[in-house]
Amino acid sequence: MPEIRKDPVTDRWVIIATERAKRPAELKAQPDVRKGGPCVFCPGEESKTPPEEYALRAPGTHKDAPGWTVRAFKNKFPALQADLETELVQQGIYTTMTGKGAHEVVVETPDHDKNLEDLSVSEIADVLRVLHQRYTRLAKDPEHRYVLVFKNAGQAAGASLEHSHCQIIATPLVPVKIKEEIEGAREHHKRTGSCVYCEMLAREAKEGTRQVAETEHFYAFNPYASCFPFETWIIPKKHEPDFGSVSSEQLEDLARVLKQTLGALADILDTPPYNIVLHTAPCNDEPCPEYHWHLEIVPRLTKIAGFEWGTGYYINPMPPENAADALRLRAEMPKEQIH
Amino acid sequence: MPEIRKDPVTDRWVIIATERAKRPAELKAQPDVRKGGPCVFCPGEESKTPPEEYALRAPGTHKDAPGWTVRAFKNKFPALQADLETELVQQGIYTTMTGKGAHEVVVETPDHDKNLEDLSVSEIADVLRVLHQRYTRLAKDPEHRYVLVFKNAGQAAGASLEHSHCQIIATPLVPVKIKEEIEGAREHHKRTGSCVYCEMLAREAKEGTRQVAETEHFYAFNPYASCFPFETWIIPKKHEPDFGSVSSEQLEDLARVLKQTLGALADILDTPPYNIVLHTAPCNDEPCPEYHWHLEIVPRLTKIAGFEWGTGYYINPMPPENAADALRLRAEMPKEQIH
Repeated sequence: MPEIRKDPVTDRWVIIATERAKRPAELKAQPDVRKGGPCVFCPGEESKTPPEEYALRAPGTHKDAPGWTVRAFKNKFPALQADLETELVQQGIYTTMTGKGAHEVVVETPDHDKNLEDLSVSEIADVLRVLHQRYTRLAKDPEHRYVLVFKNAGQAAGASLEHSHCQIIATPLVPVKIKEEIEGAREHHKRTGSCVYCEMLAREAKEGTRQVAETEHFYAFNPYASCFPFETWIIPKKHEPDFGSVSSEQLEDLARVLKQTLGALADILDTPPYNIVLHTAPCNDEPCPEYHWHLEIVPRLTKIAGFEWGTGYYINPMPPENAADALRLRAEMPKEQIH
Repeated sequence: MPEIRKDPVTDRWVIIATERAKRPAELKAQPDVRKGGPCVFCPGEESKTPPEEYALRAPGTHKDAPGWTVRAFKNKFPALQADLETELVQQGIYTTMTGKGAHEVVVETPDHDKNLEDLSVSEIADVLRVLHQRYTRLAKDPEHRYVLVFKNAGQAAGASLEHSHCQIIATPLVPVKIKEEIEGAREHHKRTGSCVYCEMLAREAKEGTRQVAETEHFYAFNPYASCFPFETWIIPKKHEPDFGSVSSEQLEDLARVLKQTLGALADILDTPPYNIVLHTAPCNDEPCPEYHWHLEIVPRLTKIAGFEWGTGYYINPMPPENAADALRLRAEMPKEQIH
């Protein structure tokens, strides 16, 4: 029997379409045909990208030369640019702003052929440290209102280069999606005195049916109103609105739960295309103590079609309870097997 | 220089990413590998679908047998179903409704190999008449709040069967996207006393830079804040909130502008995957005289990736003015060439 589930934070509904239910094997995507390296993101090709903004590199090696393990630079084809005057033009019903902001790339590994989940926990922690450094730096710019950290892995998820990388876009506006989540969290806090995400965490930990993995500081689960099959959230146990305030110890632990979760997804779905998106508080804006930062991982197994485009609602053929059953089994592998 | 444009109706912004600009040829999608007929939607295979709800057919031919030109039936794998009790269950922060509603399929032609744009104007008008009949019928059911008419053409646009068809989903809730548009239209009307869509129409007709085609009753254009390359709207010149009130003469004219527009898109982009979505007033709900029904056509040439999923905003590498230049040239072919 199909069910319509409401997102507990926003006014979004999802049809859990049991009549259209699929087994994990039926959802597997066609694997990308990989071109192989070297590419412009590989060591030795640094001159083909804009200059390095930040990198972790071996002692004695030089900026924009090999020797790095994680490397950040401006996107060569930026969606938004820093070197513009802010200008707002209103012509009748039409409003335009100059596309001022920032757009950076973080290459996660010198190895052209490794995916994020193939790296060791300490290598993933290094990637997270660089992302955190760039996030903090861009959030300090008073022109920015939001810093979006995201990853497109695989062609179907929008990646145009196969060498594993993340992107950061700093925008002069708070995105509508984040505004809606903050409003929902605020509304809930006003009504109940507590954080809706903390409540979600407590409930998921208690029920356990949508749990994927748990570490000291994080909880990974398939949300109740998952929009997509195998959609997985990673959420810190400690209530913090802003990713910027994460500790070094938490970052190390986040690397652990990320490797477990991405490893389980890769295993069950044959390295699917996916997006990871950081949801965090806006910067240089009204504070929002009610918000709770988290990561959303969305494997791209179904198409966003006319229904989704016409309604803003989603049809998900995979109940999150079934997705979690499959993922949990794999994620619960003994720790020593997860390096 | 990248530009950020605000949708004039809702709080949605689009980055027109000129640094990432593409020529139409670079946007062309890989064509689907077609399986060929006959399929379950072909004449002679009627027993493989649920029974006919409505059809246009030759005199003397029988229900669920060949002889039809357009045929409507329930979806075999419905996202929502009619035969359920409405029930709302609240458990702490989680809310669920039974998936009550309707899900129908309208096969547009007996010919397995023809796309909608390959049909004649009078054949397309027949498709629109059947869609209008089903829309009106489903909108009368007091359990329904919205009737979504849409088309997924091509695998990348979510079509699982290649035989040309539309779908109709009636939902027990007003979709968030439509609510936002109605709120925006209402807000604009309160402030200015006029319809924001009528103003848009007047402005587009005057400027002409985003115009694609014009007929007696309709205007086709690439909207100012297009989320996708070659996104095209078809909007009636007469202010009407509800698709239900369209006249037979208007339907004939809509078929004409639809053939012109889809033909131009197919020509320039090599029969791209696309979605068409009807935006109309809710049913059995508060009246919304400020709303203005229209069709949105979205060719699926770029991927919805981490940025879109994380923000609710879009990055569009094709300024709508450039898209319209290309489409207009093709759509302006002499009338006698468009049968």
